[in-house]
Amino acid sequence: MDLIPLPHRIEPAEGFLELGDDFGIEAGPGTEDTARWLRATLGAATGLALPPRKGDEYDVLHLSVRPGLDAEAYRLVVAPHGVHVQGGSPAGVFWGVQTMRQLLGPDAFRRAPLPGRTWRLPLTEIRDAPRFRWRGLMLDVARHFTPKEGVLRHLDLMAAHKLNVFHFHLTDDQGWRIEIERHPRLTEIGSWRARTKTGHRASPLWEDKPHGGYYTQDDIREIVAYATERHITVVPEIDVPGHSQAAIAAYPELGNTDVIDTTALSVWDTWGINPNVLAPTDNTLRFYEGVFEEVLRLFPSEFVHIGGDECPKDQWRRSETAQARIRELGLADEDGLQSWFIGHFDTWLAARGRRLIGWDEILEGGLAKGAAVSSWRGYAGGIAAARAGHDVVMCPEQHVYLDHRQDPGPEEPVPIGWVRTLEDVYRFEPVPPELTPEEARHVLGTQANLWTEVMEDQARVDYQAFPRLAAFAEVAWSALPAPAERDFAEFQRRMTAHYRRLDALGVAYRPPTGPLPWQRRPGVLGRPIDGPPAGR
Amino acid sequence: MDLIPLPHRIEPAEGFLELGDDFGIEAGPGTEDTARWLRATLGAATGLALPPRKGDEYDVLHLSVRPGLDAEAYRLVVAPHGVHVQGGSPAGVFWGVQTMRQLLGPDAFRRAPLPGRTWRLPLTEIRDAPRFRWRGLMLDVARHFTPKEGVLRHLDLMAAHKLNVFHFHLTDDQGWRIEIERHPRLTEIGSWRARTKTGHRASPLWEDKPHGGYYTQDDIREIVAYATERHITVVPEIDVPGHSQAAIAAYPELGNTDVIDTTALSVWDTWGINPNVLAPTDNTLRFYEGVFEEVLRLFPSEFVHIGGDECPKDQWRRSETAQARIRELGLADEDGLQSWFIGHFDTWLAARGRRLIGWDEILEGGLAKGAAVSSWRGYAGGIAAARAGHDVVMCPEQHVYLDHRQDPGPEEPVPIGWVRTLEDVYRFEPVPPELTPEEARHVLGTQANLWTEVMEDQARVDYQAFPRLAAFAEVAWSALPAPAERDFAEFQRRMTAHYRRLDALGVAYRPPTGPLPWQRRPGVLGRPIDGPPAGR
Repeated sequence: MDLIPLPHRIEPAEGFLELGDDFGIEAGPGTEDTARWLRATLGAATGLALPPRKGDEYDVLHLSVRPGLDAEAYRLVVAPHGVHVQGGSPAGVFWGVQTMRQLLGPDAFRRAPLPGRTWRLPLTEIRDAPRFRWRGLMLDVARHFTPKEGVLRHLDLMAAHKLNVFHFHLTDDQGWRIEIERHPRLTEIGSWRARTKTGHRASPLWEDKPHGGYYTQDDIREIVAYATERHITVVPEIDVPGHSQAAIAAYPELGNTDVIDTTALSVWDTWGINPNVLAPTDNTLRFYEGVFEEVLRLFPSEFVHIGGDECPKDQWRRSETAQARIRELGLADEDGLQSWFIGHFDTWLAARGRRLIGWDEILEGGLAKGAAVSSWRGYAGGIAAARAGHDVVMCPEQHVYLDHRQDPGPEEPVPIGWVRTLEDVYRFEPVPPELTPEEARHVLGTQANLWTEVMEDQARVDYQAFPRLAAFAEVAWSALPAPAERDFAEFQRRMTAHYRRLDALGVAYRPPTGPLPWQRRPGVLGRPIDGPPAGR
Repeated sequence: MDLIPLPHRIEPAEGFLELGDDFGIEAGPGTEDTARWLRATLGAATGLALPPRKGDEYDVLHLSVRPGLDAEAYRLVVAPHGVHVQGGSPAGVFWGVQTMRQLLGPDAFRRAPLPGRTWRLPLTEIRDAPRFRWRGLMLDVARHFTPKEGVLRHLDLMAAHKLNVFHFHLTDDQGWRIEIERHPRLTEIGSWRARTKTGHRASPLWEDKPHGGYYTQDDIREIVAYATERHITVVPEIDVPGHSQAAIAAYPELGNTDVIDTTALSVWDTWGINPNVLAPTDNTLRFYEGVFEEVLRLFPSEFVHIGGDECPKDQWRRSETAQARIRELGLADEDGLQSWFIGHFDTWLAARGRRLIGWDEILEGGLAKGAAVSSWRGYAGGIAAARAGHDVVMCPEQHVYLDHRQDPGPEEPVPIGWVRTLEDVYRFEPVPPELTPEEARHVLGTQANLWTEVMEDQARVDYQAFPRLAAFAEVAWSALPAPAERDFAEFQRRMTAHYRRLDALGVAYRPPTGPLPWQRRPGVLGRPIDGPPAGR
């Protein structure tokens, strides 16, 4: 059956259930959206109408919620005369249906039926449930913009891999990608740049072509609705107080006007840690409260990501306004100012029933109890957060930063960072052994991150994401043994079938034999780091 | 209602029909695919399940074929308690449903329901039928590759504009894009190039990045099936005997080996008319018969396009092999050789029940009666063809080559050719007045062509195609008055609504106010031609 991610328990039987024109769906309460998704997606692939049917008929797919199961757990039974998918909640039903789609073969992932295809399911009984409740993918649409339909495509690919949190990195020095009605210059000015560095920041090459784009609020509503139908939560990220040059270029008064000429800033066109940082003024707080008010109206997610990473301090050191603020607030230094900034929005979000999440730098100043941490600089931040009682999403750059190269070979396009092969990702363990079981309960889950400095288009993102995201999905979903005991050969065997699914989906993955000629980027400087990852 | 293309007759009434959860579809014989399309597409946009319903119930969309109507004609009646779409064939029903989708408002073109939306149709009766049976769009995927899902997207955009012929330009000097099982090097070698000229061929700039990609045969089958469901015919083009450098690079023996070193050729990386041409040998004929055998298996269309344009003659003049062939066949010169080459495949296709179509150069040597012509160098070729009894598709470069710039302003990206504004396209007339009514019957229709030398990605293609393709669709479908009498102001008024539909579809069109900053290409040389188009 070659399922990915691997289900908890599979009991195969002899024989098949053939799906004919009569094959229909009985959608129990709460599963109507999944039935509609099936008619649209599987209906397109197979040409079957999948009409509504009654429970006492043959050749029916019965979808139902069975409260005894965990919310995302499901039971899938393919019997000679019908199929049952029972989930602990509508989400569980949806994940069960994803498994069923894989059982139908790779052509079930196309958008129109190939001539002469017939459709059958192997008889089986599958019981399954995810290991983690947060199975995330972060997409950076700031460095390189992904148009709306590309985002919807990512959500489809996530659903097919049972990933359920889309961390939407919407703003950065290089672009502001979400329409904010009260601050229109954020997109008028902040959503495009005149040129872009090609490769690592040390590269001498430029793409001398304007780059830009943003999502209207209706686009965002559509993306959120589309994700919700696929039981994916969208967690928006508005990065503060660093990574904000695009916003400062649009509204110079957000910057430290007493130490630099903020009116001379434009959206950044290269990579790295930018020295520009938001001024710690009441004006800045009010401005971003306005931004977050609109963000909260668009995104219903419990968590809202405020970035908080790589905050530069030099301008604050030199700014009399910032220093006055430090004195006024009785803070020790600029680190305190950063904490005050994050703390302001922590309180602000909590008062509105939301929870703040930020990169692990936000830990440094203490946080409200409900705040959570994306542990990216290794496990340490996550361990500290869990021990302090904060929830954690484990996404250490040493393991699941998919911009890092996946092979040591010389033909890897724009090689960045450590070599993280498919096997390395397969052996990634989100819960470090240092944590007690009590502490480990704070690990909500794990997330792979797609930073797009060196991924200029969808094909490049596909190449970096796949096949490794399939291994990541299995780490996040399946109850695998300890890293050293994981059966990578068996996973690779299943991947043979999975590559056919990715082909049908039109995913431009890295082939096991290495990049195709047009996937290479000869002459573009990367920044490969040799040896095993530093830190963990 | 602001429909585009404009229907033949609209009788609006007072009031609306609200679409609720009960709203269902009664699909008459032959309309099942359209019902499935509605559930997938309109179901996704609205969140409505659109279940199968019986004819005697309220709140039903009745789809039916009514043989009395012309095949593509339809009648759409929105009454207080239900909707009727009757078509002369399943295609007519499908076009009627496209009109109904526009009546629902722009959000009916999204892929998930925006929160709080309700859905209603204005009461009306519409009678409609197309002016032409060939309402085409050509996409050049050889100069810049469009991945499979981009092709499917073009088919969706065509369907929304009631266009029904997709001319798929699959091979050219710069790339071979279709898997041919018996000649694997066509894609192994021919589907990619190491670098690409940026801008017009006189530009000094290069994109120093490999470019490539191709469709597997399963991808082609999926594309054809997807098009068929949308009542779009896919006409494949395999360009011979010129525009063949990619094939010669893959199989050097296809070239004129006695006058050039064909083993030194690679896939072409710049634009213009390439001097390389297929050798007029039996080996070449057998090779391409093999190609066309696989093409015929994949594409069921009546017409198969063999290119035939811009055939260079210099190598044939110098080649002893070519000259011997001219003598052997008793031909006058190299023009005769070109005709012989086209004639061979004309006969070969006719013997297999297909009809050849080629660019108007193929007229020069006489053609089988069933062959047809794409008139691109103005109307003259089409007029001559029609007078000789050949069918014609009118696609004069002076009017409907959408790579030509759409505004005289300095900010137009990589300006090519004559200024062809939205209004110019709206006033394009496919049938020249020179033709008698009898001759004019040979004008099958018209086609807009998207050559992609200066369109490197989907956003650039969108920019050149839209909004002009909307005007073109109206020219191809609607019974408009003579060009000078067409009410462009009224069309523009309807475009205001249509831009909202394009927004919902995620189309990166040229705004009426000019290119957005990131749609510009400063510093890239184009080749604008001043004044009105030469020729007609």
